[in-house]
Amino acid sequence: RSQQANSPARVSSLLLGRTFSTESNPIVATLFPGDGIGPEIAESVKQVFRAADVPIEWEEHYVGKEIDPRTQSFLTWESLESVRRNKVGLKGPMATPIGKGHRSLNLTLRKELNLYANVRPCYSLPGYKTRYDDVDLVTIRENTEGEYSGLEHQVVRGVVESIKIITRQASLRVAEYAFHYATAHGRARVSAIHKANIMQKTDGLFLKCCREVAEKYPEITYEEVVIDNCCMMLVKNPALFDVLVMPNLYGDIISDLCAGLIGGLGLTPSCNIGEGGIALAEAVHGSAPDIAGKNMANPTALLLSAVTMLRHLELHDKADRIQEAILKTIAEGKYRTGDLGGTSTTTEFTKAICDNL
Amino acid sequence: RSQQANSPARVSSLLLGRTFSTESNPIVATLFPGDGIGPEIAESVKQVFRAADVPIEWEEHYVGKEIDPRTQSFLTWESLESVRRNKVGLKGPMATPIGKGHRSLNLTLRKELNLYANVRPCYSLPGYKTRYDDVDLVTIRENTEGEYSGLEHQVVRGVVESIKIITRQASLRVAEYAFHYATAHGRARVSAIHKANIMQKTDGLFLKCCREVAEKYPEITYEEVVIDNCCMMLVKNPALFDVLVMPNLYGDIISDLCAGLIGGLGLTPSCNIGEGGIALAEAVHGSAPDIAGKNMANPTALLLSAVTMLRHLELHDKADRIQEAILKTIAEGKYRTGDLGGTSTTTEFTKAICDNL
Ligand SMILES: CC(C)[C@H](C(=O)O)[C@@H](O)C(=O)O
Ligand SMILES: CC(C)[C@H](C(=O)O)[C@@H](O)C(=O)O
Repeated sequence: RSQQANSPARVSSLLLGRTFSTESNPIVATLFPGDGIGPEIAESVKQVFRAADVPIEWEEHYVGKEIDPRTQSFLTWESLESVRRNKVGLKGPMATPIGKGHRSLNLTLRKELNLYANVRPCYSLPGYKTRYDDVDLVTIRENTEGEYSGLEHQVVRGVVESIKIITRQASLRVAEYAFHYATAHGRARVSAIHKANIMQKTDGLFLKCCREVAEKYPEITYEEVVIDNCCMMLVKNPALFDVLVMPNLYGDIISDLCAGLIGGLGLTPSCNIGEGGIALAEAVHGSAPDIAGKNMANPTALLLSAVTMLRHLELHDKADRIQEAILKTIAEGKYRTGDLGGTSTTTEFTKAICDNL
Repeated sequence: RSQQANSPARVSSLLLGRTFSTESNPIVATLFPGDGIGPEIAESVKQVFRAADVPIEWEEHYVGKEIDPRTQSFLTWESLESVRRNKVGLKGPMATPIGKGHRSLNLTLRKELNLYANVRPCYSLPGYKTRYDDVDLVTIRENTEGEYSGLEHQVVRGVVESIKIITRQASLRVAEYAFHYATAHGRARVSAIHKANIMQKTDGLFLKCCREVAEKYPEITYEEVVIDNCCMMLVKNPALFDVLVMPNLYGDIISDLCAGLIGGLGLTPSCNIGEGGIALAEAVHGSAPDIAGKNMANPTALLLSAVTMLRHLELHDKADRIQEAILKTIAEGKYRTGDLGGTSTTTEFTKAICDNL
């Protein structure tokens, strides 16, 4: 079930009145393959989607570290417009442009497209052994403010400050999304992660907003967990958690911690939700320039992210089928890429998934 | 070896000229047993120290949630003076005074005694099984500034901000301490944990200071790790880390995460280092009011913290003997308190440690 499954009225409003017909017209989705291994893993997604007859037509744009020599641009207006128009997109890793910062592209996309929630479902992959086999949680990160305000300055020589901003509007928005998501996905509990014992005003406001929203969802258990304690509990017993919602930096930290529990960023899907019903799914791992072009990359994170995109589009049958095929291929263990301890190429792994469809 | 082992000149300067004679005069150390299970676990430390003939005389003060009805004080001047005079102390858990905050006592102590570094050695306990058996690291947390500045305000209705302060002075001080500690303890690497890709000015200054200090310690490997990546690496492979140094909030988060790896706050020692050579060791777990007075509490964290205090005093033989007896008792598994899956009382567990001395 996608986050809209139980509330069709919401779907159309989220999607600004647009309806997707999966019967005749293909859905158009934006694709940013990105840098390094990006094009290879994007190719893998295209192949799997073709094999599964997913009615999606890709609109591909290059966003990444290679500057267009004439425009000196990393990110074109057309790329942004494509996501705004299509409402759905998939993004590969983007490398650090020299002199700017990897972050500028990620942060610029978040800002320009108002991607207010970063959603990362995180679950132990059957058959892929880590120290944990009991992870099944979703982190929902506020993606626009907090410690990422960019407001910093030197007060006097040797004394600098950064400003963390928390607003009622953004906190309510992400809290709404978290409870909506929990309801639509049949999840029982939402934990708000904070450090309000120290940051009483900022994290205090965040909690206040979460509580307000929680009251509208009496069927969902709501709890508040201090971030230090949350991290301790996560490494001791991740099964204690279900849906976690939190300010930007805590989300950055905890989503990576959780990815670590199940094997790393190469295995975890991510999807950004923006105002107006935009969903931009993404692989959050790096562009791995050392293995780029060598047919060695693991496309799992991008594939699973593409699945979250399909769920956003209500294409649940396709999403289920593809997800099962990916998990089955990893569980069987016969075809695995090098990072998972195997020797398969990207193409072989992709073919195995297609065969498992 | 203690952090002063290799540099006796430093010892006396850190301790402001005071020398401890372990032969005739006993050393006087402050003891704050604290609330809840505090008095019981403090009693356990006293017993073990007696059994090991540790030449320490305790100067006990009550600091905690019980208000003196006449003075309305949680924390007396005499308590603070005692630590300032003795330079060494041990602190049990302090409960949340109604209406104020647990933090006020902890934070007030940090502030008043200028406890600038919180040091937590964290290692897998032989025989006590968790998902990890390969942890052996030390977190060193800047303890006075950062996100704990207390500077917060509402900008307009619905928009609040918190200010994170990083200073050159405090960053250099904690970095110096970390490299000094690494050197004295024969540790090979110091990792500075940061988010300077987002907070370029504040975390950037912190890193700059670490780099400056690192240059004076060419024999120690220095590296910088982004906090989100650090948390992922810690849960995947904690053996990658040795000494970690970081700003206040990251230290709060990561030290608890690391405690989780080896079993929780009931097993992890902590010691705060202050200006003028003060060392205030502490149990960082809670006061567990539900089991207080029932002879059920696990004194391990306070005992291991007391051991760090002995190391600060250069009483290495005593420290080694006590630490070995604690670890042996836990490893044997015959006497364990309830939180470790056993059925022993605090007294039985303590006696077993004394017998193992
Ligand atoms: C690259 C970096 C700016 C980014 C962030 O901190 O948000 C990354 O860690 C992420 O989680 O997407
Ligand atoms: C109780 C709280 C204020 C404190 C902190 O955040 O520093 C605690 O978590 C700690 O680590 O000592």
